[in-house]
Parts: sequence; C-alpha cells; structure tokens
Amino acid sequence: MGDRILDCITAPSDLGLLTNEELGILATEVREQIVRDTSRTGGHVASSLGAVEIILAVHSLIKSPHDRFVFDVGHQAYAHKLLTGRMSRFHTLRTFQGLSGFTNPFESEHDVHASGHASDSLSIALGLAKARAIRGGDEKIVALIGDAGLSGGMAFEAINTIGQMQLPIVMILNDNEMSISRNVGALVKHLGALRSSEAYREARDATQERFEQAGRMPRALVGFGRSMKDSLKQFVLPQETMLYEQLGILCTPPIDGHDIAQLKDILATALEADGPVLIHAVTRKGAGYAPAEADPVRFHGAPAFDVATGKDAKPSSGVPSYTSVFGNALVAEGEADDRVVAITAAMRGGTGVEGFFRAFPDRAIDVGIAEENAVGMAAGLSKGGMKPVVAIYSTFLQRAIDQLIIDNALIETNVVFAIDRAGLVGADGATHHGVFDLVYTRMVPNMRVLAPSNEAELVNALHTALQLGGPVAVRYPRGNAQGVELPKQPACLPLGRSVERRAGDQVVFLAFGDMVKVAMDAAELMAQQGIEARVVDMRWAKPLDEDAIARAADAELVVTLEDGAIAGGVGEGVVHALTRTGKVPPVMVLGIEDAFVTHGAPAQLFESLGLDAPQVASRVQDRLQQLRDQG
Amino acid sequence: MGDRILDCITAPSDLGLLTNEELGILATEVREQIVRDTSRTGGHVASSLGAVEIILAVHSLIKSPHDRFVFDVGHQAYAHKLLTGRMSRFHTLRTFQGLSGFTNPFESEHDVHASGHASDSLSIALGLAKARAIRGGDEKIVALIGDAGLSGGMAFEAINTIGQMQLPIVMILNDNEMSISRNVGALVKHLGALRSSEAYREARDATQERFEQAGRMPRALVGFGRSMKDSLKQFVLPQETMLYEQLGILCTPPIDGHDIAQLKDILATALEADGPVLIHAVTRKGAGYAPAEADPVRFHGAPAFDVATGKDAKPSSGVPSYTSVFGNALVAEGEADDRVVAITAAMRGGTGVEGFFRAFPDRAIDVGIAEENAVGMAAGLSKGGMKPVVAIYSTFLQRAIDQLIIDNALIETNVVFAIDRAGLVGADGATHHGVFDLVYTRMVPNMRVLAPSNEAELVNALHTALQLGGPVAVRYPRGNAQGVELPKQPACLPLGRSVERRAGDQVVFLAFGDMVKVAMDAAELMAQQGIEARVVDMRWAKPLDEDAIARAADAELVVTLEDGAIAGGVGEGVVHALTRTGKVPPVMVLGIEDAFVTHGAPAQLFESLGLDAPQVASRVQDRLQQLRDQG
Repeated sequence: MGDRILDCITAPSDLGLLTNEELGILATEVREQIVRDTSRTGGHVASSLGAVEIILAVHSLIKSPHDRFVFDVGHQAYAHKLLTGRMSRFHTLRTFQGLSGFTNPFESEHDVHASGHASDSLSIALGLAKARAIRGGDEKIVALIGDAGLSGGMAFEAINTIGQMQLPIVMILNDNEMSISRNVGALVKHLGALRSSEAYREARDATQERFEQAGRMPRALVGFGRSMKDSLKQFVLPQETMLYEQLGILCTPPIDGHDIAQLKDILATALEADGPVLIHAVTRKGAGYAPAEADPVRFHGAPAFDVATGKDAKPSSGVPSYTSVFGNALVAEGEADDRVVAITAAMRGGTGVEGFFRAFPDRAIDVGIAEENAVGMAAGLSKGGMKPVVAIYSTFLQRAIDQLIIDNALIETNVVFAIDRAGLVGADGATHHGVFDLVYTRMVPNMRVLAPSNEAELVNALHTALQLGGPVAVRYPRGNAQGVELPKQPACLPLGRSVERRAGDQVVFLAFGDMVKVAMDAAELMAQQGIEARVVDMRWAKPLDEDAIARAADAELVVTLEDGAIAGGVGEGVVHALTRTGKVPPVMVLGIEDAFVTHGAPAQLFESLGLDAPQVASRVQDRLQQLRDQG
Repeated sequence: MGDRILDCITAPSDLGLLTNEELGILATEVREQIVRDTSRTGGHVASSLGAVEIILAVHSLIKSPHDRFVFDVGHQAYAHKLLTGRMSRFHTLRTFQGLSGFTNPFESEHDVHASGHASDSLSIALGLAKARAIRGGDEKIVALIGDAGLSGGMAFEAINTIGQMQLPIVMILNDNEMSISRNVGALVKHLGALRSSEAYREARDATQERFEQAGRMPRALVGFGRSMKDSLKQFVLPQETMLYEQLGILCTPPIDGHDIAQLKDILATALEADGPVLIHAVTRKGAGYAPAEADPVRFHGAPAFDVATGKDAKPSSGVPSYTSVFGNALVAEGEADDRVVAITAAMRGGTGVEGFFRAFPDRAIDVGIAEENAVGMAAGLSKGGMKPVVAIYSTFLQRAIDQLIIDNALIETNVVFAIDRAGLVGADGATHHGVFDLVYTRMVPNMRVLAPSNEAELVNALHTALQLGGPVAVRYPRGNAQGVELPKQPACLPLGRSVERRAGDQVVFLAFGDMVKVAMDAAELMAQQGIEARVVDMRWAKPLDEDAIARAADAELVVTLEDGAIAGGVGEGVVHALTRTGKVPPVMVLGIEDAFVTHGAPAQLFESLGLDAPQVASRVQDRLQQLRDQG
C-alpha cells in the first residue's frame, strides 16, 4: 500500500504534478480503494467507478478549493473524496458519524454543496459564476452531471439561463451508456444518437488503444490559435449536434470519458473558454470492476458485497421490505382494475414497481428524473379516466409539491402517491430522509394521508387509496417490514378511523406508521414499571381520528409519535385537535426535532434522536413522574 | 349586439360551421367583449387578446369536451371562456362568486385542469394522451403554451417524455414576440432566431396581407399524400430548426398566429399526425386593442381601465403597496452592500425588483419562469460570497421547496426569500393564494421566518434577514400596506422576539403579519364589550417567541391568527409551544381552514372565511362566553 501514488496525494492540486501515465496508475489505485471500502460499507459503486478519470482529469487542471468543482448527485464523487483528504476516513462512508455518501461542505472545503438530489449542479455552478462576475474573481467553475440528471427540469432551467448569460462554466456531461438501455426520455435517445455516430465510434476505439498503452496524447491537437469551437470539435465530428448548441452552449462531440489524456486536453481548452462549454464524456458505469460493469443496476446503490464475486456479503433477512410488499400489492391491484397505472421517476427498482412494469408494460411509465412531470402527468391520466399511482421517494416528492397542490389536490384527481422512504432512510442521510412528507401532504386541502404501521396495513392502505378516489398519499419507510402475515384479500380501511393496538389508561400513545412498533415496545417496557399505556395506531395522518384523540384526553399524558419533522407535523395536528376537545391533557410531541438528521443505520439514528423504544419509554416515564410530582 | 356571431354560439363546436371570414369577424367580436368586460373587472388582457385566433382555430376543428383543449396558465383562455357557455357570466370574471380568471374544471366541462401555474399543460396533455392510448379512445388532445411557459423545467420534462412516447399530441406554442425584448433565457433567443429568419418574415407579411383581406387561404398547400413533415414545413423554411426536433418532436416553422386560415390548415394536418407535433405560432400580446399592444406589460394583469384611453379607471390610493416598499428597501440595501443580488423568476414588476434592476443591472437576475433554477442559483451565489434575495410569490415558491430545503437550508446559505403575495391574493384565486408558505418554511431546519405586520416592519425585516445570515424568509401580502411611516434607517429586529401592540389580560391574540391589524381591530371591538385583549405582533413565525407564548398562557383564552393554512401552520406551532409551558390555556387557532379558497376581493374572502375583524371579535367573544359559562 505504501508504494501507491494515492498515498502521496496530500491535496487534489498535487495531481497537476503527475504525468498522464501516473494519473492512469492513480485511477487504478482509486478504483481498488473504492471497491475495497465500499465492499464493506455498501455504496454507489457503479457511478463512482465510471467517473474516476473525469475527476482525476479535472483535479489535475484546477486548484480546488479556489477553483470550484460541483457534483450533481455526489454519489459519483468517491474519487473526489479520496483525493481531497478523506482517504483515511473513506472506510467510514455512509456509516454513523462517518463520511457522507454525497458531497457535503461541512465535511470538506472541496465540496461546494450538499449534493444528493439530481439536476441541481448547473444552477449552483451558474450562481458561482455570476458571483465571480460580480466580484471579479478568476476561479474556474466545473460541474459534473450525469445524463439522467440532465433530464430533470431544474437542469434545463439552468441550461436556459447559462445559454443566455454566457458566463464561463465548464459542464461535463458524464454520459454512461447504460441509460440508453433503459430508454427513458428523448434527451437520452438524442445522446445515444450522438454516441452511435461512426465518427465517434472510430475516435473512441482509437483513443481506447492509446488509453491501453497508458501513453500521453500529443497536445498538438489543442491549438489556441484556432477558434475554441474548432479546438473542441476537431476530435470527432458526428453529423448530429448537441441540442444545447441551439441554446448558445458550445458542446463537444462525445469523447471517451476514460481517456485521461483526451479529457485533459479538451478540459484545458474548455477551462480557457470565455463562455459556457459542455464536454460530452461517455463513460461506463462500474468501469474497471467486472461485477459492476456486468450489473451496473445492482451496483448503483449496492449493499456490502464480496469483492471477488460481487455477490451480497450478507444474506437477506427473509422479512420482505415495504417496497416489495407494495410492488406485489400494486400488481394485484393492476390485475383487478385495468385503470391502475404506475408512474416512477427513474426509480423502477427502488420503488418496487419493476414487477408492475413486467406485468403491465402499457400501463407503466418511467419519466426519468422528472418528478414534476410525473405528478403532472398523473393528473392528466386521472382526467383521462385512469387511476395513476405515483411511486416515489418522500424526499423526491419534495420536487413536485406544487404539482401535488395545483394539478391534483385542487381539482381532486384520483391519484395515489405511494411515498416510499418516508422517515429515516439510513445511510443516504440528510438529503434522502423522508421527514417532511407528513407536513407537506397534510397542509394540502382535499388530501388524505395514510401511514400504515406494517405490511398488511400497507396492502390495505393501497387498496383503500385506490377505492377512495381523490388524491391520497400512502407513506411507508425504507427497509424491512414487520414480518406480519399479509391479507389474502385487501380490505378497505374506514376513513379517518384509528385502531387501538394495546389497552391502557394512564398514558396514551397516538402513533403513526412505523412508530406504532416503537410505541408498542415502549408500552411493554413501561408496563414492566407498572404504567399502563394505550397504543393507538392512528392509521390516517389526514383526516385524523378526532374521536380517538378526544378519548385520549382523559389520560394522564398523551404522547404523539411520528418519524417526521415535528414542526408542522401531524403531532402538532393532534395537539391542535386536543384543544378542540375543550380539555387539553399534558401532551408530548415526539418526532424529529428541528435539525437535519445525519446518515447511519436507522437504529443508530433513532437512538441518537431519542426515538428508540427504551428512550421513548424513559422520556415518557420521566414526564409522567414530573406531572405526578407536580400534581 | 344581437347581430353578433358570438351571440349565436351555443357550443364551441359550432365554430366548425363558420367560414374563415366569419371566424375573422368572430375574432373581432370576441376581442371587443374581452376589452369591454375586463375594462371593468381587470384581468389578463394582453395574453388573452393575443390568443384569440388560435383558440378560434382550435375550437373550429375539435369537438370539446370530447376532444381536450389544455391551457397553460389559463389567463390566455378568455376567448375559450366566451365560446364555452360562459359569455353571460364573463362580466363577473375574477370577482367573488364569479368566473375564475383561469381555467377550472369545476366551472366548465371544457376546462381540463386548474391552470394558473405555468408550464404544466404539456404534462397534463401527455397524461391525457397516455390514458387515451390505454383506453383506446379517439379524442384529440391540444395544448396551448406560451414561450415563457416553455422555459419552465416542468415543460422540458414533459417534452422529454413526449418525445420518447411519440403519442399524438398537438402542442401550440403561443410565441408572443414581446418576450424577446426581455431577453430572458436562451430558449427565447432561440425562438427569436427562428422568427427573424427572412423566409418567416416574408411568409408572415404575405399571410398578413391575406389576413387583411379576410379571405380564405387555399387548402391545396396541405396535401395528405405528402409526408406530414413536408406538409407542416412547406409554408416557410427558416434555416434554423426548432431544438425540440432533436428530441423527436415534429415542429413547424414559425407561422402567423393571427391568421385563422393558416392556423386551421396547419392544425388540421397536425391533428391527423400519429405523433407529437409542435406548432410554432407567433402572436402579438394585446393584438387588436391598441393600448394593450402599445404596453403589453401593463396589460398583462391589468386593473380596471378606461376602454378609450387604456388608462387606469381608478386612481391609486396613495398608500404604497408592500411590493413597492420592498422594492425601494432592496435598492437601499443594495446601495449599502454590494453583495446584495436580486433574483426574480419572470416577475420583475410583480415582485417590485424593477428598481433594483435599473440601479444594479449587474446584480439583478431574471431567470424566466424557472423557480427551481432561481432558488438553486441563489445557493450558488451565496457560496460565491453574495447575499442573494429571491423575490418570489408565495405560490410560485411552491415550485422550489426542495431547492429551499436541500440546496439552501441544509448547507445554511445566506439567502433571503422575499415572499410576496403571502396570504390571500384576491382576484387570481385558488392557484395564486399564498396560504402554504408559513407551513413549508417553518418545517425546514435552519430556516428563519419573518412576518412583518406593516411596511415599516417589512423594511426592518428585510434588513434583519440580510444581516442575520443563513436562509431567512420574509413574507408579506399583496396590496396596499398599512400606511405607517417608514424608518429612516432600517433596524435589526431581535431574533425570535415579539412586540406587544396592545395591552390586555383576558384574551391574548398572538398574530402574524397582516393579521396583526385584524387582531388590533378585533381587540378594539371587544374593548367596547368590556373585554381586554392583548395583541402580540409575533414578528417571527420561526423561531417563535416562546416567552411571549408562555406569558399568554395566563390568559382566559389565547387566539392565534394567521393568513395561511391552519394544518401545519404557525398557529399549531404556537399550540405545541403552549403544551411545553406545562399549562395549556383554552386556545383558538384562527387561519385558513382546510379548503381551497376561491377568488374575489381580499376583504370579501376574509369575510367569507370569518377572518375579518368583526367576525374574529365575535368568534372570540362567543368562545370566551362559552368558557365562562362552563367555568
């Protein structure tokens, strides 16, 4: 290990001292390190392996943090992390108190922003460029964005302004051919057409050969005497041109994103440009690690794996995930009613709708990373007589709240929002936790919101939502369900009615979703101390069961329990409802306090927030004791 | 009037029976009706006048509501309203219990969705087209979108999927040349380049001549024997091609959007296409009404005006609007600190930043209708050392909540969100009320939220927000401020501290923003009944003044008062805070109940919601009496 170039890198600008041959060796070392460490922690292996040469080329030509390197969805940034002083902690990636899986400015001065949601890098870069223009700085600004990220509306909005403002920004499009196979969106087809040009193929094969010789490419090709456009175009000249050229952005033809020499030559030219340049770099997801190249989808966000075979290190638990239960239930609903349509925004696997896509390809829609369109299109489908189910992560539905309000709730479409990854998601951390959906769904008139407490409830909740009509959200967490038996036939849950899961009069837990389990466990612990706690599975975050809330008002202490933000959350809604009963008992609102939550195993996170069963029990007991002492 | 063609129209499909000459006469009648009625009600005059021929041409070729006509920002839909059975009520436009200023499916079966937020029409149309494909229907689907609407990311996302799916949809781009003068976005420049081609100019002049002769254009040009592409292209052939063609969408060259014959010919062809077609129609905002053609900006959303002169019918009140106070204060802040940057999303006039644009053109940014980019770019500007102020309407910030959370709050950027049109906006109605911002800002960690109660407070709030650092929202309503004197020098308001505006111990009003005035007036009325009410101007919706809340707990009754949604709102936050004081007094949470609010004068709306001072006073007195009777 001591002989590695990687170990000698103390700052990313050191890369400027390396030959292309050395950079090629470094790329291999970086790949080995990424595979070794992520095989233990899990992580976004495929994306990060694909972007190694691009990151090395950029850091060899800029001086970060003076120059700014902005990542879109920082899960491709692992090489960047290794080169910016974080190698010794890289084995802590995505673990509690370890490195974040994305870029994070609180972690390193080399990270510009908290990447995690796609398509935002170009806006950030544009803001940096405009600030530089106002201040009069000389820093270079580079943004790295994937082809999937470009399909997001936010990226288009930025391109539109970048094309107008003409400020110098180097945008690198990391176009991994994989996306074409999924065939999502016309933009991706367009990129595919550019890549498939004969000229590009020939050029790629030629540079590939050079790459394999690890030799340095002659710089002669880059002539500052010629126009910038000619310099950037001359490598390869496909007949098709990038559509962004019509928006005033100088675009290169596709180049080989694993050829460091070529990348450096083109980057060097682009960094001198006096306007925006887009470098179209073609890469392979998982490049350099055979199992990831063979199955980039599995290695997009992989759990810990065996390096030699690429297989999962740990067998699965046997308990199904909420996601898979939802996926199966959706297929069953689709069989029963041919108006059921599934919509995903680039998350077929993640949201569990893959089975629906296989069973009903004509009623399954993947719009790519385009949540606004997903939710708007759902409204159109509903107006066309369908029953669309938008399967989406809680954190990504944040992108389409306006469409939920204006295009759906206002006109009462029959759209089901299947909100996966609600609550704390674990290793992905602050950008991915689903802690706001209870707030932003319940604030909206005409919405109904179900929070199933186990997988049987989820099956019934989905069925209820589809039967009910109107916009309905069903929210459930990431990870394993509770292991309860599924209903043979899904049932309709009565609107706005809760279920008492445990009897007791001294303390009443009014719990939502997955937190019902925590309440049950806490109640069990409290029973051992002689405290009788009722546990109410509220089922509906909206409309609330006001009768159950009124009954709770007789207890010594009412405790609301949710895995979302307290501010604006459903616990506050319960407290408000209690004030309408005329008698407000002592009440505790338990949930996510007003701070962003870090990454780590969910159990660790809940513990750190005082929301695991033992702490909930002791917090409640302490408060009860305090009340009794006062009383 | 009785001789008008317009009066003989009983259903929009009647238009299919008219000759082009008759349609031309009808266009004039429609314009006269629009100008006459909107001169009394105010309205979106310029846009609607520009779209008359397009709407007539579409309705003459489709059978609505079997065929679906989707409007993007329905403020261009007035002609559609007149032709779809709403003429007798058209004079009630935008008034309380009258017609909506936008399309609204609850108002007419000819309206597909609640338009109002730009850029959503293509997603709606796509959803309709996909539903038709699943069902096997034959209905035509037409969407009408402006060039400004196309700049929104949601529209691009839809285009991306439309290009992929290749379902038959006719998209009409209503390209009013006006936008080019504002020069917002590269897309608009691109459209300008298409329009400025010599071939288009010649063709337009030629059709203009024909148009003036009100004659019918020979249909011979449209040959179904030829390929669709040839048919659509042959009119004019500019050298530039529309960029969407690279995304698989068949686009026409620019055509004259006021030439009914030409529109009908191209539309007839496009409606038979077996894939998506975009018709690029060039129009003039305000067409046919000289004052609106001369000043389309003023006639975008105009108050009542004098038909002969185009001048405002009513003189302004003399009290400045919150918007103008903000605009002046921002200029002053910009003078004092050259890091202050203003960002607007196509609302220079509406948000009051026009003065800042004049004073500091280099520090003023208009990104067009692109709220996500506006908020993301603000984050980049902050990271680049600036102090960006995003001046935006409450309802449109709903489009960028994710960017507020992830790109700003999470990394604690120094961005000020100047949230105009908070609360009830009046005539624009449900799609435009700003009733959710208190919820979606206060749910976000690291956010601070100021709700100034008058224009002096607004000046100080803006100053405080800029001094404080971190992401801060300042929210204030549409319309006239309170008429108080402005501070000579803006002051920093102490963080999280309220101000007592009136003393009293029996009832305590904890009021936010503009509702402080309502509380003061209500307290005055209650004083006449011998009830002493304290009025606390809370100033900060986040962080809340917990001391003031604790002091309120001694009252007989605490009343929170906000002009936003109760569910998740700041009143519920106050109630929650009260539970932490150990003693919860009787409390009323007053605000917008859980339903969408219609359009009308703000005073009418507040009255209809029981939120005007007399009703607040009587609701509070009733509750107090009830409590005393019980007690």
